[in-house]
Amino acid sequence: MLSSERQLVSFLGERFSWSAPGVRLGIGDDAAVLAPPGAPIVVSVDASVDGVHFDLGYLTHQDVGYRAFQAAVSDLAAMGAEPLAALSALVLPRQLSSDAIDQLTAGQALASRETGCPVVGGNISRGGELSLTTTVIGRALEPIQRRGARPGEQIWLVGDVGLAAAGLSFLRLQHSRRARGWGSSSGASARLLASEAALAPCVDAWRRPRARLAEGLALVGRASAAIDLSDGLAADARQLADASGVRLVIERERLRAALSPALWVAQAQLRRSALRFALSGGEDYALLATGPSARRPDGAVPIGHVELGRGAFLDEGDRLTLLRGGFDHLKR
Amino acid sequence: MLSSERQLVSFLGERFSWSAPGVRLGIGDDAAVLAPPGAPIVVSVDASVDGVHFDLGYLTHQDVGYRAFQAAVSDLAAMGAEPLAALSALVLPRQLSSDAIDQLTAGQALASRETGCPVVGGNISRGGELSLTTTVIGRALEPIQRRGARPGEQIWLVGDVGLAAAGLSFLRLQHSRRARGWGSSSGASARLLASEAALAPCVDAWRRPRARLAEGLALVGRASAAIDLSDGLAADARQLADASGVRLVIERERLRAALSPALWVAQAQLRRSALRFALSGGEDYALLATGPSARRPDGAVPIGHVELGRGAFLDEGDRLTLLRGGFDHLKR
Repeated sequence: MLSSERQLVSFLGERFSWSAPGVRLGIGDDAAVLAPPGAPIVVSVDASVDGVHFDLGYLTHQDVGYRAFQAAVSDLAAMGAEPLAALSALVLPRQLSSDAIDQLTAGQALASRETGCPVVGGNISRGGELSLTTTVIGRALEPIQRRGARPGEQIWLVGDVGLAAAGLSFLRLQHSRRARGWGSSSGASARLLASEAALAPCVDAWRRPRARLAEGLALVGRASAAIDLSDGLAADARQLADASGVRLVIERERLRAALSPALWVAQAQLRRSALRFALSGGEDYALLATGPSARRPDGAVPIGHVELGRGAFLDEGDRLTLLRGGFDHLKR
Repeated sequence: MLSSERQLVSFLGERFSWSAPGVRLGIGDDAAVLAPPGAPIVVSVDASVDGVHFDLGYLTHQDVGYRAFQAAVSDLAAMGAEPLAALSALVLPRQLSSDAIDQLTAGQALASRETGCPVVGGNISRGGELSLTTTVIGRALEPIQRRGARPGEQIWLVGDVGLAAAGLSFLRLQHSRRARGWGSSSGASARLLASEAALAPCVDAWRRPRARLAEGLALVGRASAAIDLSDGLAADARQLADASGVRLVIERERLRAALSPALWVAQAQLRRSALRFALSGGEDYALLATGPSARRPDGAVPIGHVELGRGAFLDEGDRLTLLRGGFDHLKR
């Protein structure tokens, strides 16, 4: 059965198992590595489909273009690669207005400039549902793979986690309140406005994520493994643990200490656990890496350690909890 | 207004107009050319969307996977590039069976092996409509662009044209006859069977197109410009003429002489002009190139010449006809 993304990826890994001399690393990492004469080339593709990866009720077309592009480039960041170029394949429903196309591509163009990753080609097609499929090509002398983590190393968090999930959670709450007419009471209305200001950093993190390119480059020669946090800390830590054949233990108190003040505000306002946002929430595009403590770069915050064993765990002081859950695009 | 593919490509060319030192050739050709240290890298992406690029009434899932992959690789052929690797982004509707996924990817895998282009990564997503977006990465010391055609050169056809359109046309006719119950008359039934055998090469050309990689490589150092025939000879000749700033004149009698015997069979059976299939039918993935007659490689058939001027024309002996029409994916 091919019911989970993981099963399908593994199936495809076997289906497409043959390789060629120019391929250094194939299916299964953040990006593949090609090795033509000269520097290794790193390539990855990421799709953003209406109703699956984004909801135009909460995002403008410009947001959609921007975040689809940044999400794709984030895979280069996780490999410690520099962007060379991108290709953009758009499926545009007939009813999509010229203005919407203008905004969508303006968002892509903004992200393209910000990431230093020029769009050099693409494909345009009609179709029933809007989608953006972005291929990114980068260059990396020493690509950081998922499989290098070793027992005794630290786990590093680079960038904030949980904010995007808190931002989306607030937007949904706001939407359901408005739909139920709560906005008509001036007290509730004022509270909503107050939340809006307090939660702006979270909403912004979700609407306008940023690929951590400089941070990824800073990991080169220091980190033993890295992955970008697109599906949530728990799920992605498990992916890295599986790829490396080790156990990742995230220490709760260290993780709590690493969380952004904005996430504590979100916890108070939304009455949902900051830790849960951090562990289960995806789409932050922070980086998770491992490496020896002596090599930790500035900006990488230690949140746990690597052990012999398997799987990803949360060390809660008195007990060790297996990290399950996380995000599977096929199961949504 | 962004109502045609051409307008949209031109709009996107401006929108994404900034470049970077590693980019040798950007938007507008069969593929982009990157120039990291070492050999130039050629990249392209091609989407195949259910109901737009294919119809599961006429194709198996294996056909769909196979042709989507070959169509993408064909862009490398048109650049005179060797494949390095491919990325496959799939959007899979929930109701698609495991067996269908198996067949779809088996078709891709077959094409991957045949073209020597390993799949090194991709993306899987849920969505409302099945689509396959294939990125291909190749290597080319001297990429053949669309813009090099010069007056005085010949126009070369490499591979057959019109067959795919004739094949699809037959399948549609067969379908409508069956739907109208013509199959119940044994005479009509026998005629349909006879046509099926006679038109098998055309149906096969449509269901199982082949990227002309070896032929594309044979054009390197000989052709001044090349394009793959995905949208039809008329439309693609115009694209090449526009990119080169010249006029392409296709000579009717030379083109007729270059047509496959199978296309004349199709003309007789389907009572539609072989020349029209050749000029307007897309999806053959033959190559159209230009170059000096002295450099014409084996297998490249001269079908016209390049002149000063603009546009693509058909020289019918007594008159010169402007070639219009052809295929616009956005207008379908």
